[in-house]
Order: sequence, then C-alpha cells, then structure tokens
Amino acid sequence: MKQFPLLLLLMMLMVSTSPASAQERKRLREYGAKIGVLPTGKENAITDVAGVLVGQVTLQQGQQVRTGVTAILPHAGNLFQEKVPAAVYVGNGFGKLAGSTQVQELGNLETPIILTNTLSVATAMHAVITHTLQQPGNEKVQSVNALVGETNDGGLNDIRGRHVTEKHVLEAIRKAAAGPVAEGNVGAGTGTICFGYKGGIGTSSRKLPANLGGYTVGVLVQSNFGGVLQIAGVPVGQELGRFSFRQQILEKADGSCMIVVATDAPLDARNLERLASRAMLGLGKTGGLASNGSGDYVIAFSTHPGLRVPYETKDKTQTMTLLRNDEMSSLFMGAIEATEEAILNSLFKAETTIGKDKTKVEALPLDKTIDLLKKHHVLNP
Amino acid sequence: MKQFPLLLLLMMLMVSTSPASAQERKRLREYGAKIGVLPTGKENAITDVAGVLVGQVTLQQGQQVRTGVTAILPHAGNLFQEKVPAAVYVGNGFGKLAGSTQVQELGNLETPIILTNTLSVATAMHAVITHTLQQPGNEKVQSVNALVGETNDGGLNDIRGRHVTEKHVLEAIRKAAAGPVAEGNVGAGTGTICFGYKGGIGTSSRKLPANLGGYTVGVLVQSNFGGVLQIAGVPVGQELGRFSFRQQILEKADGSCMIVVATDAPLDARNLERLASRAMLGLGKTGGLASNGSGDYVIAFSTHPGLRVPYETKDKTQTMTLLRNDEMSSLFMGAIEATEEAILNSLFKAETTIGKDKTKVEALPLDKTIDLLKKHHVLNP
Amino acid sequence: MKQFPLLLLLMMLMVSTSPASAQERKRLREYGAKIGVLPTGKENAITDVAGVLVGQVTLQQGQQVRTGVTAILPHAGNLFQEKVPAAVYVGNGFGKLAGSTQVQELGNLETPIILTNTLSVATAMHAVITHTLQQPGNEKVQSVNALVGETNDGGLNDIRGRHVTEKHVLEAIRKAAAGPVAEGNVGAGTGTICFGYKGGIGTSSRKLPANLGGYTVGVLVQSNFGGVLQIAGVPVGQELGRFSFRQQILEKADGSCMIVVATDAPLDARNLERLASRAMLGLGKTGGLASNGSGDYVIAFSTHPGLRVPYETKDKTQTMTLLRNDEMSSLFMGAIEATEEAILNSLFKAETTIGKDKTKVEALPLDKTIDLLKKHHVLNP
Amino acid sequence: MKQFPLLLLLMMLMVSTSPASAQERKRLREYGAKIGVLPTGKENAITDVAGVLVGQVTLQQGQQVRTGVTAILPHAGNLFQEKVPAAVYVGNGFGKLAGSTQVQELGNLETPIILTNTLSVATAMHAVITHTLQQPGNEKVQSVNALVGETNDGGLNDIRGRHVTEKHVLEAIRKAAAGPVAEGNVGAGTGTICFGYKGGIGTSSRKLPANLGGYTVGVLVQSNFGGVLQIAGVPVGQELGRFSFRQQILEKADGSCMIVVATDAPLDARNLERLASRAMLGLGKTGGLASNGSGDYVIAFSTHPGLRVPYETKDKTQTMTLLRNDEMSSLFMGAIEATEEAILNSLFKAETTIGKDKTKVEALPLDKTIDLLKKHHVLNP
Repeated sequence: MKQFPLLLLLMMLMVSTSPASAQERKRLREYGAKIGVLPTGKENAITDVAGVLVGQVTLQQGQQVRTGVTAILPHAGNLFQEKVPAAVYVGNGFGKLAGSTQVQELGNLETPIILTNTLSVATAMHAVITHTLQQPGNEKVQSVNALVGETNDGGLNDIRGRHVTEKHVLEAIRKAAAGPVAEGNVGAGTGTICFGYKGGIGTSSRKLPANLGGYTVGVLVQSNFGGVLQIAGVPVGQELGRFSFRQQILEKADGSCMIVVATDAPLDARNLERLASRAMLGLGKTGGLASNGSGDYVIAFSTHPGLRVPYETKDKTQTMTLLRNDEMSSLFMGAIEATEEAILNSLFKAETTIGKDKTKVEALPLDKTIDLLKKHHVLNP
Repeated sequence: MKQFPLLLLLMMLMVSTSPASAQERKRLREYGAKIGVLPTGKENAITDVAGVLVGQVTLQQGQQVRTGVTAILPHAGNLFQEKVPAAVYVGNGFGKLAGSTQVQELGNLETPIILTNTLSVATAMHAVITHTLQQPGNEKVQSVNALVGETNDGGLNDIRGRHVTEKHVLEAIRKAAAGPVAEGNVGAGTGTICFGYKGGIGTSSRKLPANLGGYTVGVLVQSNFGGVLQIAGVPVGQELGRFSFRQQILEKADGSCMIVVATDAPLDARNLERLASRAMLGLGKTGGLASNGSGDYVIAFSTHPGLRVPYETKDKTQTMTLLRNDEMSSLFMGAIEATEEAILNSLFKAETTIGKDKTKVEALPLDKTIDLLKKHHVLNP
Repeated sequence: MKQFPLLLLLMMLMVSTSPASAQERKRLREYGAKIGVLPTGKENAITDVAGVLVGQVTLQQGQQVRTGVTAILPHAGNLFQEKVPAAVYVGNGFGKLAGSTQVQELGNLETPIILTNTLSVATAMHAVITHTLQQPGNEKVQSVNALVGETNDGGLNDIRGRHVTEKHVLEAIRKAAAGPVAEGNVGAGTGTICFGYKGGIGTSSRKLPANLGGYTVGVLVQSNFGGVLQIAGVPVGQELGRFSFRQQILEKADGSCMIVVATDAPLDARNLERLASRAMLGLGKTGGLASNGSGDYVIAFSTHPGLRVPYETKDKTQTMTLLRNDEMSSLFMGAIEATEEAILNSLFKAETTIGKDKTKVEALPLDKTIDLLKKHHVLNP
Repeated sequence: MKQFPLLLLLMMLMVSTSPASAQERKRLREYGAKIGVLPTGKENAITDVAGVLVGQVTLQQGQQVRTGVTAILPHAGNLFQEKVPAAVYVGNGFGKLAGSTQVQELGNLETPIILTNTLSVATAMHAVITHTLQQPGNEKVQSVNALVGETNDGGLNDIRGRHVTEKHVLEAIRKAAAGPVAEGNVGAGTGTICFGYKGGIGTSSRKLPANLGGYTVGVLVQSNFGGVLQIAGVPVGQELGRFSFRQQILEKADGSCMIVVATDAPLDARNLERLASRAMLGLGKTGGLASNGSGDYVIAFSTHPGLRVPYETKDKTQTMTLLRNDEMSSLFMGAIEATEEAILNSLFKAETTIGKDKTKVEALPLDKTIDLLKKHHVLNP
C-alpha cells in the first residue's frame, strides 16, 4: 500500500484525546452482535479450519517501532513436500505481495503465509526461504516460492528503519499454533490503522450447517484501510464523524487489507480463487472501498487432506474428490461473513496506540459504538 | 445465469398472498433513506452522466411472456465511428455476456449496450449488428463487436420461447433518451427476481463534490439475484424471513446482476476496469454474494468527449487528458454507493408479477420495509 | 477480427495471375516435411482425440458468398448433460468469441464449438441454443452457454449479407463425424486468407510416446491472419516476396486465427488454459504475430471420460484423476507442434479462390514452396 | 523456476567433452544471419531505446559460485519520482517475480528492474528498497514496489548458498550504463543453461522504419530454458542431437526465461501488456515451450518522456499523447524478432562453464552451428 496520508494523521492527532480504555476490549460477538446468517466455528477464528496454525511476533520497541509478523500455516507438516491447493485474488494491487504468480500458475502453496509491513517483505521472504531450505527433507530444494503480504504501518511505525528481522519471521513460524488467535495490536497488525482508528489482526470463521456441506471457512485479516465504517450495517463512521470523502476534509481512504481465507472444503485452485474474490464483498460491507492506494489481496487455500500435492512422486496423476461448482455458494457466503466479522474484530480488539513521532491513533470507542448498535437495534437496547 | 431454482419458486408461490400495492411505489430515497455519503446527481440515474441515453422495451404478452430489452448508449452519435473507453469486470462469469473480450483487449466500446434475457442474447447481438451496419457512415463496416448482457428471467418468463425479436432490440435503441429512467418491471427487468422478491431495472448516480473532482458516476442494474437482503444496512431479508442459506430450506442464491457504470471522468480502460470491479462491493452491501450460478458482470465506460476513439483517422497517436490513479478513490466510492442504491431502487420500484405458469412473485413489501427502516433508525421513527 | 485491409486485397488482385493448380493439393506431411519432434496421431487430425467429431458446411453461392460453418464436438452425447472440462485463452481479443466468460468461470463446456464468420456469430449462437433446447433430455433447460468463434472472411465473402443461417449451423452439428477432416476452403475456412494466400481450415495432432504419457493432442484452426510466413523454419514469405512489414508496402498483418485444442489427457480447466496458451507459440512459429486487428483465441478441452461434469447429480463432490502439473510439458510441446502444422495444412490444402467483387486470392504456390523447402534442406533435394 | 533436472545435468556432464572455444564468440548477426524482416537499432541492444541503462555484476567465486545480477533502468533519473508506464505478462508463472501486481494495477514501474537467481530475489528486493529510500528526493518515501525477476541457476551455482548480497545489487544499479551490453555468462546469466547449452544474458533491438512509426523496441533476456532449439528456423537442436522430448531420454524442458522489453513508443500500460505477450512468440521461435517448470515473465515499459508519471503533483490529470491501437502491429513484430534474436545471442555469446560440483555445461558449438546454418541456406555456403 501507499504510505499513510499526512492529513489524516494530523486529524487523528488532534482528535485523539480520549484515554485508552482501561478494561479489556472484547470481540464484536461478545457484545451480542451477529454478522450474517451462518454459524461460526468453535473459536470463531481461522484456526477453526482443522490444521491451520497461526504464529505472531509483535515488535514494540521504544517509541518508534510498532510493527510485527503474522504467520499462517495451512498445516503443521512440511509444506514444501506437501503443498496445498491455493489461489490469490487481487482486490486492488497497490501492494508488494510476493509469490502470487506461482500460486496462480500451479494452483498450490508451498510455504507458510507471512504478513508484515510494506518494507519488510524482502526480509520475510528471505526468512521463509531459510525456513524451507532448513526443514528436514528439503536438503535438495533449490526453488522456494515464499508467499508474503503486507500493509503499510508507516503511520505509527518507523517503517523506513526496517526493524523486522529474519529471526522475527522464523519465530512467528515456530510459534504457530492452533486454538484462539490474538487480535488487534499484534503481529503484522501492531501498527496498522483502519477507518481512522487503530486496526490490526482480526479473525472469524463460519461453520456451514450439515445440509450445506458442513465445511468450515476461516478468515484472518490485517486491517489497514479507510472508507466509511459500518458495523453490522450501522453507519458508525458517519455517526462518529470520522469517515473518508467528507467534503470539508480531503481525507484519503488509502490503506490496505491482507485477507487470508482457509477452508477444509475440497476445493481446487479455480474454486479457491472464486472463494477468495468473495472476501472483498465482506470488506465492502464494513465500508471499505479498495481505494487507489490499497493493497487488497486475498489468499485462499484448502486444508483438505485428500488434496495435498506431493512435491515429488512417481505417480503421474493424482486422484482427488472435489466439491462441485454447484455447492460453492454457501462457502462464498461464509467467506463474506467471516471477512466482515474479522475486520470488525480487528477494530474491537485493537487498542489506542502512540507510536512514531508521538503519533497517536485512538482505538474504536467501544462505549459509543455499543450505544450506536443499540440505537440501531443491532443490540438490544 | 443459471435457471431459477424450483424450490425457491415454489416457496414464493406459497407465500405470495398479499395484494399488489394499489398506490405507486417510490424510489428508496423518496422515503427519506440515504445510501452512503456522497450526493446524487440530478435525476439520481445513469443519465446524469452527460450524454448517456437509456431505452427500454417491455414484453408482457399473455400469461407467459415477461421479458424485455434495455439499451444503454454512451452517446447519441455514431458509436462505431466514435468509440468510448470501456472495460468489463467479471464478478462471476456464469453468464452469456457477448463482446467482452474485444472490449478488454482494445479498451473501447463501439455499440450500444443491450441487456435482455439469457436465451435472447443472440437475437440482441444480431440486432446490434444490424443497427451498426445500417447507421449512416458505416456502409463499409465489416466487423461489429456487440456488447450484450443478460440475466435469466425463466422464473416468470417463457424464456425457451425466445420472444425477444430483433425489432424489439432496435426499438429499444431507437427510444433511448436522456432524463429519468423507468425502473422495476421494465425492459430487461420485466421478469427478474431479486432476493426472492420482484427485481428489475434500477438506477442511481453520484455527483462528486468539486474538491473531489466534480465528476458524475451513474449506475444501471438488471437485478436478478439472491442472498440476504440488507437495505441501508438493515437486515430486511432476515426480518422478513426471506433469505438464502437458512438451515431449514435449502434455498439457492443463484441469479445474476448486470451492472452498467457510466462516468464523465476522463478514465482510460485500466481505470475503468478498476472502477467496474468496485460495483461488486455495492452489490455485496445489498446482501448479494455473486453465487455460483450468477452472471455478475460490470461494464464501465467514460463519456468524456476528449477520449472518443475514432474508428479511422490519419493520426497515429491520440492526445488525451486522463485522471491520475491518485484521484480514483472517490469515483470508486461513487460506484459502490450508486450500485447499492440502484439495486435497492430496482426492488422498491418493481411490482408484484404473475407470469409463466401462474408463478407469482411478490414485490418487496414496502410497508413492512419502511417500518423496519424506522425501527433501525435509518428513517426517522 | 477487423475487416481485411484494402491495400492488401488490391495487391493480391494484381499479382494473382497464376492458374489454380489442376492436381489435388496435399497436406504438408505428404510432401515429406515434418514439424517438430513428436509423432502425429493416426489421421494427423483433431479427431485423433477419441470422441471428437467435426462437421462442416461450406457456402459458396454465386460470386459473392464464400463462407461457412465448422462445428467441433467434444463427444457424441448430450454435451449439456455431460459437460467437458474446458478453457479459453485470448491471444489477442479483437474478435467476437461468444461464451468465453462462462467457460473460464466454471471450467467447462456445454455445447458444440462453432466457428463461422464475424457477423454470423449471433446466428450461430442462436442455432446452438436451438440445438441444445431440442436435444432429448434438455426439456427443462433454460440457460445455454454457446461457444462460438469467428474470423473475418469479408475479403472474399459478402459478410454484411450474413448468409449463414441457423439451418447451416444445425447441419454442421448434425454432420459432425470422426475420422479425416476436410481442410482448406471448407466450412468456416471457405473465405479466409492467411499470409496473403488463401487460408482455411487445417488440422493436425500429436500422439505422445508412452513414456511421456501416451496422450493425444489434436488441433483444428481457422486461419485468417498475416505476418511473415515460415514453413518448417524456412522463410517462405520472404522468399516469395509476400509478407507484412515490408518497407515499401504498408501492408497490415491484421486477421485472426481461431484455434481449438482437444486432448484425451485428464486435465482440469487450469491446466487446459495453460495448454491453450501454448498454441499461440505454434502460431508464432508460422510467422504470425497476433496483430492488433486479430481475434486469436484458443479453446481447449479434455475428452477424458472420467472428467465429464454432469449437469445435475445428487453428488456434491466429484472424484477425478488428474494429470499432475509436472507432466504438462510434453502436452505443451504437442499443442505447439500441432498448431504450427494445422496452420500450414490449412495453407497447403486451400485453393485459389475468386469471391466477392471478383477478388481473387491465390493459393500458396506449392511448386515454389516445395522448391524452397528443398533448397533449405527441409525436404531432400 | 523449478530446480534444474538431475537427468539433464548428468547427460550434459557426460557429453561435455569438447574444449572451450579459444577465440572470442560473436553475436549471431556477426556471422551473417538475420532474424526477421525488421532492421535492428544501432547496438542491436535494449540500450538502443533512448535512456535505457544496463548494469551487471558477475559472481564467479571458486568452483561453486556462478551467479550474478543484471539491472535494467528505464531512465537515469529518480524512477520513484518519475515512474514509467509498464506492464507484466506471465508466460508461465513458475517463478518468483516480485512486484508484478502493483505494476499491473497502477500501470507503472517505480524502480530499476533486477534479474538474479531464484533464491536471491529477497536480497535483490531489499537492495532495491535501500536504493530507493536513499535516493535524494525520496526521504519521505515509505512504500517501494521493487520489480525483481529470476531464473534458477542451481545447475551450475550453489544457489542454496545465496551468495548474492545487497552490495552486489546496488553495484549493478550503480554501474548501469548506456551503449553495448555484455552478453552470455554475465550478470544474472552467469550460471544459466539454455537448450542444454550454456545460456545467459542476450539482447537485441528493432528500429521500425519511419513509415511504421520509427520507434525502437529493445529486448534483454536471461535465458535458462529447454525445448527443441531452432536458430533462424534451422533445427539445430535436432541436428546436434540435443533436445527435449526425445523418446529414449526422459529429459525435461524445465527452466525459465526472464524477458525485458523496452520501447520509446508512447504506449500506455494496456498496450505495453499486449506488447509483452508477443515476446513469448519470439521465445517459441527459438524452440522454447514455456514448460511446466518455467518462470517465463515479460516486463515491458515505455521510456517516452511525455508519459512519465510523477509521484506527486498538484495536477489531478495528466495529458499524454499515446499510440493508437491500430499502430501496434509493427511493434509486436519488433518484440517477437528482438526476443528471438536476444535468446540466440545469449547462446552465441555464452561460454562453456564448469561450476558447482564440477558440473560442466558446454557452450553452443559454434563451428557445427555455423555449418548447419550454411547447410540450410541461412548463411551462404
């Protein structure tokens, strides 16, 4: 993504006077709000998709460094030897995602997915290669396609300092675990800004009912974009007076959103690409627009064990059982809903942050937000 | 698009007991609701983009025929001789749009855009060729790229009868005019169904403030799709108990939406394609999902007089003044908002219809809808 | 494609003084030349791919009409009920191919492929819909994606007269048969021009050796383009003094090539698209360039019986055995070689034609060509 | 690209018995051969396009290191502040090209293009960011889209050692100069293999005659792929008995080709993408096939001074004079011819190399090759 616009930062600085909430911030659904019509998975997280692991390293050093790394692993094994079907959809390509063309050509993913800041993609890529070359069984590997995405946290972080190191990335991969996923100011979301408030990492999932296939779709986002915030349809951005395209303030909506969509449904790359594209509709429902300066990318993969692609095998063919096109729609809906909720979770969980050059970015004010959700009957008054 | 699912039709038939509203149905905004943050153009229609003409022919013959033709002309002149910059974005390609690849390759449009039903695309294409060959000045033309889109009105219309004739298409082109655009059960929207209610043609526009460039974006839709209806963020579909993906009823969300985006901003094909893709976010905000069986296509063009592409000229180059990438975001927002509102207008204006085999599709119940908008504070209680 | 340039036609008219060859023209390989390193199938035709049928209707009426229809059927059954995996690759999109977006979205083909002239695509599309609606078992079908391609035969044919009728198209489908395929001035190739000589329909195939999988790749082309003709690497165009981009004559290279690639290899849509793109390299080897005015499209499909996609089924998944990416390269080579040879066959078999307004287009002069192949040691002197 | 197949290397090792040529190897054209019908530029190099600079760093350390860096600069100024119109075409995406999506989205290029080996892309990307951040005028830049391509030199180079450092990349950028370009075993071509012989860097150009616009097209390649070598149409690979797809030896054709196309023609990103795609036809004419394991990417840019895109400006629009679609064909031909000749130059100039683990890769045997070109009448006997 593009660097964050100065005017918006100035405005934030001026209005950011409320104290950081003392009590812990909860996820959207814990306040009683529901997004969409499909049920969530157990943790309401990308890790509800069996096998998916997430690891994060948060860098908050002194006043200037507010950045980090988030690693998403489709499975705990050797990804290079056991690749997974995958696809990339480009919502708006003002970004530095590395590795997309090979995923698109071959239809599979062979490394962890790394999210970090814009100027640290090279470092993360280098680290993913190191990780892969060193993994037992990969001693003869000479080609690695690292998939690394980013958003620009240069508003709160000394991004030009490139403080993410190879070690941080390897640590995020090593720490990757199943279960609940930390949200808000963590990992690659440490320094991001969303709808003028502190953004960050967010996650959500949908578990389809049995008669729709019973599959799980999980989403993880790194939210760092602008627009006109809507929460469960409520025009919170307008009500709070903070949104893009107001006539008085030429505030830009630039910023990016990295979106990772995991599913255990048996999808090939073609249908994963279709699934990936739907995540953008979820972003749209939060009030995002994929602005000119956005790097909005969606990476989708299937963890279905029967679809693993062996690096080397004597077999010239592979037998697999794939979901028919006709069964895709409910997965599409799941991806839309989970993306919307993941973005909102990133806002609900992110906390007010003071970073580079004393820039302060407020968290979404939860009290006012809850009041608005009540007023609009999303929550019971 | 795919043919409409039987189960949904049966359900409609059963629940369709309320009488058609006696009084005239109004557009969403006439009830006081606003979509988004940007102001509309004068007519809140695609024709707010200077030069754009719309012509419609409605076919309601006996009980079985409920279909028609909608023609959109970028300008009133000879389109073949004075092509306009254009782009096509495929939201979901389960559709029969003709002419897309040439638009994508050459970046321009040389005929009227025709919308009709799925099985009448060939007829419309033939008519557009006839129109072009016969236009004065085109006597030597031997190649015409007709751009014809469709959705499937086979739920209410005897679509296999292919009742649209070349004459109907030529009439729609001939009747094309500036000013207000008829919405609901007209033209290509005569037999369409949207969110389980009667859909149809809808339109809306946005006029950017001067400091955002002052350009106009206009949208026209042929709405024929399913999902979970939201109106200005209010979960109307759920509140009315009619939406896809409910667990008890395996109702499919299939259906399509043709979207035409016009602008007077000086955009080349690359930025028009970016603009086109944003319309899908507007569709998402109404609760659409671009289901597997959808033919969701967005056609975008610029009417800017300085960008007309002459068919033949002695000049090897063309000098043009184009909007910079950096100025695109507010146009993106305009396209999102106008698409959302155009779809909602199609629902607000469409009337209960009885068609093929006595199938009845109810209009969106406005009384209940208005009540819901009041309850959720979108309208003043 | 664009209409054929006047200058080129004038030049042809002037130089076309040699009499039509009295004896029957043979295919390239019958003169002893080989293209590439892989062996051909039995007939050296697209029909070497088991199940593929080709039917052609040639229209030569009076002086003005020189056009026709070529139908390619992936199998003899009900294609709508038993779709085949398919893909479309756009080499240069100045053309009117109908049906491409649905093939790309869903990854399959549900109708015969029809080739005809530019202004008759609508007629052919209408006919394919008629064919499908009338086929036993399709009584309830309400949506048909007809795949119809074209090139512009307006140099020799009164294309504005649109002489192809629905009946001609249905006849071509009905006549479709296995076995040898007529080449040259037949079907959709009746009025086409290639490298300044009479072009037309051409076909070729490759049968991979067992250790490369044993699969067959078959290609059929409708050749109608310009450039700098090379035959088995020999610069025949330059030697004969007829080629584009000479400095004295501003001859354009416009024109198109429709290419259909069939294979029995078990490929999904992703790998079929990759295969399709390689056909353009074969076109390049004949001296083509995919000029600005070209509609160069490649349609690829797999006839593998295990990959048929049923229109309706109770199964939500489909089990299939697919070729691994790693095994694709020899198929790529097969597609390149067969495309090159199919184009050359179209030239070798096409005969001198006098058509619209007494325009005469000479056949490739075989005597001189054979001499050149001998001189350059492609044939034994 | 994929790592180089073992079998092919073994074969090479066995047959590589001829001594390295003592005398200097010349470029193809210096032996009297011509490729195509268009004239070359002055140097027959990418640097014939005014403003283009090339810098190379060759790493030959001990026995194991055979790799390097090649930098291509569209102009000598601050590329970030004065971006150039650009496009990327993916011939086959088994590669790690970084930066492609932003070029495709925004239609411009803001850094030098770097070519290196597969596992050093991250290092090169990091260096390009360093270069850009440090350039005077870029003090506030927080987002850099580095465009870095690669092929896999792991056959001759200890690629896992990642011997390319940031310093090497910065040196290549600093050394970039106009004028003749070193070819063969230099820069990113130091360790590459092409058609079973030593490949490397190659370049060529075409200068269109005035009546075709007078523009220059220049190409630079990093050749590292297999297939069935043809030189000016002569089947040299077959004659020398070294080619892919022979039935006895299951030799793979894997490998990659990075292709950079520069032009001074005033092209926007859409027409640059079309131009880029034509380079693949030139690769095809040498006998390449874009095998499954290939990373074949084409990067095209325009140096036309009137099309520079300023990073920041008060202007919301930009006035530019662009070439019409109708004038593209001769540029297409130029790109095809120059790509073919650039690849052949890389083979003619590359020298026999012994590298990693004493692997020896022979240079193309010039004596035999010249004899074959004479036999086939490409050169005068």
